[in-house]
Amino acid sequence: MTVGDLGEFGLIQRITGRLRQGPDVLLGPGDDAAVLKAPDGRVVVTTDLLVEGRHFRRDWSSGYDIGRKAAAQNLADVAAMGARPTAIFVGLGIPRDLPVDWAEQLTDGLRDECGLVGASVAGGDIVGADSVVVGVTALGDLQGRAPVTRAGARPGQVVAVAGRLGYAAAGLALLQAGRAISGFEELVAAHRRPAPPYGRGPEAAELGATAMLDVSDGLVQDLGHIAEAGGVGVELDPGALEVPEVMGAAARALGADPLDWVLTGGEDHALAAVFPEGARLGDGWRIVGRVTGGRGVLVKGRDPGRGGWDHFQ
Amino acid sequence: MTVGDLGEFGLIQRITGRLRQGPDVLLGPGDDAAVLKAPDGRVVVTTDLLVEGRHFRRDWSSGYDIGRKAAAQNLADVAAMGARPTAIFVGLGIPRDLPVDWAEQLTDGLRDECGLVGASVAGGDIVGADSVVVGVTALGDLQGRAPVTRAGARPGQVVAVAGRLGYAAAGLALLQAGRAISGFEELVAAHRRPAPPYGRGPEAAELGATAMLDVSDGLVQDLGHIAEAGGVGVELDPGALEVPEVMGAAARALGADPLDWVLTGGEDHALAAVFPEGARLGDGWRIVGRVTGGRGVLVKGRDPGRGGWDHFQ
Repeated sequence: MTVGDLGEFGLIQRITGRLRQGPDVLLGPGDDAAVLKAPDGRVVVTTDLLVEGRHFRRDWSSGYDIGRKAAAQNLADVAAMGARPTAIFVGLGIPRDLPVDWAEQLTDGLRDECGLVGASVAGGDIVGADSVVVGVTALGDLQGRAPVTRAGARPGQVVAVAGRLGYAAAGLALLQAGRAISGFEELVAAHRRPAPPYGRGPEAAELGATAMLDVSDGLVQDLGHIAEAGGVGVELDPGALEVPEVMGAAARALGADPLDWVLTGGEDHALAAVFPEGARLGDGWRIVGRVTGGRGVLVKGRDPGRGGWDHFQ
Repeated sequence: MTVGDLGEFGLIQRITGRLRQGPDVLLGPGDDAAVLKAPDGRVVVTTDLLVEGRHFRRDWSSGYDIGRKAAAQNLADVAAMGARPTAIFVGLGIPRDLPVDWAEQLTDGLRDECGLVGASVAGGDIVGADSVVVGVTALGDLQGRAPVTRAGARPGQVVAVAGRLGYAAAGLALLQAGRAISGFEELVAAHRRPAPPYGRGPEAAELGATAMLDVSDGLVQDLGHIAEAGGVGVELDPGALEVPEVMGAAARALGADPLDWVLTGGEDHALAAVFPEGARLGDGWRIVGRVTGGRGVLVKGRDPGRGGWDHFQ
């Protein structure tokens, strides 16, 4: 059955029936707007748009995986402010020949990714479109903490990363090369479904992080935002950037440099944060560099090039 | 110059440079997420997706008008909960050959519509797409009031409307018929740019409204939501539904029934609300019907048919 057969209101009923509303949702889907708790008196808000053929391909990722990924990249932005995600809202554009099952799987993916952090899919909008478009807006609660922006890095502080780097880029490279993925399932799965270290965001805020962001466009490019916003430089230590065995093997199979994936690969939604020297970081963080009085991001003293992802190039 | 020439970061700079952040915005565009005030401890949230060729045509509406309209339909949803809009977030998908000027005009339209209610364009996302997609999420502050949902109507209460009905539908019909619009500018302008009565939303809440929504799919269909949610019926008095002179003239020119536009035309984003009998409504509201113990929406005792807009039919 297609969404055209079912009609708008039938589809909305099917989708909302698959959702569960958590304790932050005072009024969920079905009215002109939802009402959420904002106990802190402030609310963190971020939004992203995912477009079929640009951010995902339906032949490379299931509806479920696309739902997980669309939620993940927004929830990671909330975590990167040091906040706890509370809810997402989803604007969904779909062609009328889309199978209802696909829309249901997408819903489940959105719901389950939110479930990892206790957040809810609290509302949305469904419209017709020629190809699939998924707009996600995520909200979060700062729980009394100051937001950790990109702007607070100071020379002498340390740069640390939580979560994976380069996995999604390696997985995408394998898919693009049409290579048999046997042995590389972990990388391809990382492209389909990132695993951001959500809890590390509030943790970093508690540990005194002075700047933080989620790595969505590549470590070098994103640390460039921290450098620019703080009026500082960042010196990365490539020795501290581990290349996992599976990534090394994939790079050999493709004739690629795995460090490129680690330095410029986006979409794993790791968290990169700056901490005062001597901050007692737990196992979840690895120190990968240092803030300097210079400008820009250097790797072993050299400019690694801009790298990263420009949506119009 | 096209957005492809300018590149993503250049475009973001151009766009954010045109925005002004109001007092509800603690941290505006440029970080992983924005931070808004939520002084009430609750926040109202709604989202809509607008797709080129479905919700607007670039040859029928300017970028500025599309911006106004995209903001308006979300701000109206916030008002329909009885809340004051504080900010919108915009997910924008655009082709790389889009003129930069068009994106700037869209931004100005979003900004100026928000300006009518003191809200801000506080963040967003820009991605490449084959045609223009505009996702808007609006937030609002209940200022200590209970939200006015769709569910509270009780038999004997009165149904009232603030704002225009049928104007946008008449304007669209004129455009679709390719008719010279001389004399009908007001209707065509209403299609391009709705004028929701934002302030009437909080006012209705203060006046004791028991149910409210904004008319986005047509009065009959939308009142059907109030009837269903409340387990009641609504009886409309067509005599109370004025057909303005200009609409009557347009209907004669097209051989249409103007009452169809008034009863089933969406996109004017009037507010329809239910009040206790005897509520002292000001000039901004006109009583158009009554809540009954029945089911569904009747016009002069008859079922007017479902009408309204299904996005997949």
